[in-house]
Amino acid sequence: MNQIQLLGIAGSLRKGSYNRKLLQIIHRRIPGDVEMEIHYLDEIPLYNMDIEKEGFPEAVKNFQALVSSCDGIIIASPEYNYGIPGVLKNAIDWTSRPFDQNPFDKKPCAICSASASQFGGARAQQHLRQVLSAIGMLVMPQPELYIPKAQNIFDENQEINETTLKRIDKLIASFIVFIKKHKA
Amino acid sequence: MNQIQLLGIAGSLRKGSYNRKLLQIIHRRIPGDVEMEIHYLDEIPLYNMDIEKEGFPEAVKNFQALVSSCDGIIIASPEYNYGIPGVLKNAIDWTSRPFDQNPFDKKPCAICSASASQFGGARAQQHLRQVLSAIGMLVMPQPELYIPKAQNIFDENQEINETTLKRIDKLIASFIVFIKKHKA
Repeated sequence: MNQIQLLGIAGSLRKGSYNRKLLQIIHRRIPGDVEMEIHYLDEIPLYNMDIEKEGFPEAVKNFQALVSSCDGIIIASPEYNYGIPGVLKNAIDWTSRPFDQNPFDKKPCAICSASASQFGGARAQQHLRQVLSAIGMLVMPQPELYIPKAQNIFDENQEINETTLKRIDKLIASFIVFIKKHKA
Repeated sequence: MNQIQLLGIAGSLRKGSYNRKLLQIIHRRIPGDVEMEIHYLDEIPLYNMDIEKEGFPEAVKNFQALVSSCDGIIIASPEYNYGIPGVLKNAIDWTSRPFDQNPFDKKPCAICSASASQFGGARAQQHLRQVLSAIGMLVMPQPELYIPKAQNIFDENQEINETTLKRIDKLIASFIVFIKKHKA
């Protein structure tokens, strides 16, 4: 079996975003036979079908190519207004077009969320599962990874605690098994 | 009681969007003692908390002022991937910030959707209700207005059929009563 190539997507554009930090920690802890690229959504414009008809923007085409070529995607998202950020939904809206060339179709996906609230992004994950089912992704049902009160976890003056690291490692290990089953 | 001022928001950026057409029809059919302004979301950039900290973009401040000053909002949205467009969610994410100055709070709202599918945007409306509850809007529960197979309804070669016009008029009349109750 070839090396596994993961794509990490952050739902927030903030440079110091907890979800970007979470992806960076995942990146550092993946096994040696797995590669991972983290992609940020800053360059993807607002979806507009009139623009689509003139031609897909370069940033969308680049992201579609990354989605197509990877073996699995890890999405780390904050929660805005009981759902995923418009920024993340907008990138999915663009990238899943046109419907018959949707690169997300049948692609394995793991989701996680970090949030300042005590809910840890639980409602965003629920919303994200609905959206990902619309675009045909194979979303790993368990284990779930929520990081509440993320400002304490990702405090730059301290190490990430062992409990959180174990949960992150469990997500990674489970997702690799999940991907291998779907590639087999 | 002063004149009622409505704000219409379209969830799609496409110039020929069915939901823009739906808002324009609503605009033409409101009673003489009601005013309505239709606002499109083209200018609102992707939400980024780093940008928020430097200062809200002009397009966001303008939209916040419109939301603040109106008596009620009518949102007409298509459905993308089982939810509202990222474009609409993004505008809501921006405009509801900061949390303690959220202009949507306790503002009456009516929702409707037009879609090429047979479902008429039903899942988008469900998602939209969740998001609008997060930002404290008073969303009118009934009547509901879904326009399925919108390409047939908004065909430029024919008049809008009477059944659809009656449903639109019912939404408008009910919403004006709803607004007056909340203003009283």
